Amino acid sequence: MSTLTLSTDFVQRLDQTADDTEALLARLLSDQLLPDEIARPRRLMEAIRYSSLAGGKRLRPFLVVESAAVFGVPRDAALLAGAALECIHCYSLIHDDLPAMDNSELRRGRPTLHRAYDDATAILAGDALLTLAFDIITRDEIHADAGVRLLLTRALARASGIGGMVGGQMLDLAGEGRFGDREPVDVARLQQMKTGALLRFGCIAGALLGQASKEQYKALDDYGRALGEAFQIADDLLDVEGDAAALGKPAGADAALNKTTFVTQLGIDGAKKRVGDLLARADKALSIFGEKGDVLRAAARFVAERKN
Amino acid sequence: MSTLTLSTDFVQRLDQTADDTEALLARLLSDQLLPDEIARPRRLMEAIRYSSLAGGKRLRPFLVVESAAVFGVPRDAALLAGAALECIHCYSLIHDDLPAMDNSELRRGRPTLHRAYDDATAILAGDALLTLAFDIITRDEIHADAGVRLLLTRALARASGIGGMVGGQMLDLAGEGRFGDREPVDVARLQQMKTGALLRFGCIAGALLGQASKEQYKALDDYGRALGEAFQIADDLLDVEGDAAALGKPAGADAALNKTTFVTQLGIDGAKKRVGDLLARADKALSIFGEKGDVLRAAARFVAERKN
Repeated sequence: MSTLTLSTDFVQRLDQTADDTEALLARLLSDQLLPDEIARPRRLMEAIRYSSLAGGKRLRPFLVVESAAVFGVPRDAALLAGAALECIHCYSLIHDDLPAMDNSELRRGRPTLHRAYDDATAILAGDALLTLAFDIITRDEIHADAGVRLLLTRALARASGIGGMVGGQMLDLAGEGRFGDREPVDVARLQQMKTGALLRFGCIAGALLGQASKEQYKALDDYGRALGEAFQIADDLLDVEGDAAALGKPAGADAALNKTTFVTQLGIDGAKKRVGDLLARADKALSIFGEKGDVLRAAARFVAERKN
Repeated sequence: MSTLTLSTDFVQRLDQTADDTEALLARLLSDQLLPDEIARPRRLMEAIRYSSLAGGKRLRPFLVVESAAVFGVPRDAALLAGAALECIHCYSLIHDDLPAMDNSELRRGRPTLHRAYDDATAILAGDALLTLAFDIITRDEIHADAGVRLLLTRALARASGIGGMVGGQMLDLAGEGRFGDREPVDVARLQQMKTGALLRFGCIAGALLGQASKEQYKALDDYGRALGEAFQIADDLLDVEGDAAALGKPAGADAALNKTTFVTQLGIDGAKKRVGDLLARADKALSIFGEKGDVLRAAARFVAERKN
């Protein structure tokens, strides 16, 4: 794995987008009613805010903002699309943590939503955030051609649905033997669905908003796939080598479940080598953007080297 | 309540749309991958089909098709929008039935999804159907202006989300005392959110697809609100007077939970009188469409007089 130190400039940029995303989500999750809304039940709003305004790196919105910046897309439009993507990410964590799913007690060092509230509230908060994502991504404040916005909306649905994140979570549970015998796990396919599809969406969102050429779209698609796989391998490595305090959740969860991961498949050294190859692939994909691809290049490194 | 007998013609029309919706959903839920999809996990697909291809009146798609027919919108486009709405309806039933929510064992005379499969599969099947709705409603086969389709997509998100169906379910649970003391229930507001918002969407979807005038939109909106309230009062009456065999689930569930309903609030006679008033309001709203409103007029009667 590369040992390149991330520049202060990159970290500031990442933090700025995290702050802007947090502020935008706080506004979108205010008690103010939208047109055609009847009421926003207080407990549901509190639960949603508990889960989605808990800080975090906001990596997915950052990918949207930076892939959009390559094409000069206005930052506000990209932030909205990023906020929609973050709603999907937050809902998926809430539902995955449920007792019927991963039964997790901690998330980012705090009680998971169903622990802090209750299971019914957590199910509905997840449903509400998933739905809110499609409310946000169709808003007129995303000043793009209506056809482009429809494409973007459909791409988000595809990345999140049966053949994307939700399907990946199902395969993951099947691989744990949750529905009878353990089903064989294709680690690469599982990753592409469960975590890869949303990260890839973050990268192609900029291409869609920026009305990229086919070649540019394909470059960001390739980049997004490489980054997504590097992200998952880093995750699997952290589960083996990471520190519970930095992770905000227990390490060793995969081993405890006897899960097939990139690390069990490639070994620690093999997994680290693979990350290096993926970073090279990401760099190569971005080459057509020249200097405009620098931040995305750094983002891939950040993803691969993160400690939590 | 009116004792008008529904014509054979109306029932045939309703059945035809139910059949067409079933066939369309079966096609949309085939094992064939969509572009950008990686895999459709078998067990998840089976679970989704178990819940969403179980027949039923398909009232919500019917409202979309018939409100669209007023404006001469092509039937295929309306059926797709109707199928998206039905996906939302089906997901809401799956999640509402979960042990953490209403803990229901039967739905349409068969085991609920989490009973036939398991809780994790039911949570993910619901999430997948909710997401699929937004995949469907953004498809190009809905040959309408892209701006119109964005409006339609956003209206579906609003009807389903925090200030619509999901919020209504939250208020319903709060009214049952699920989060501590019973919270006071505003029956009309609860109905508008929990069941009304999706029924109303079915009626305004036709106006949006048909690029209705403001006056025509308002007429279908008024009609949809009256029909939605009549639907809920009929539901509350069926819970008191209905027959478990016809309902496919136990009657008396509201009384067992000591719930505040239109019937506890208005009494049986008062509730029936209110349904009559709502049918008159629905008729009045439709008057600007002349004979073109006949099917929707009959639909309101059907909703009010149904036995399950």
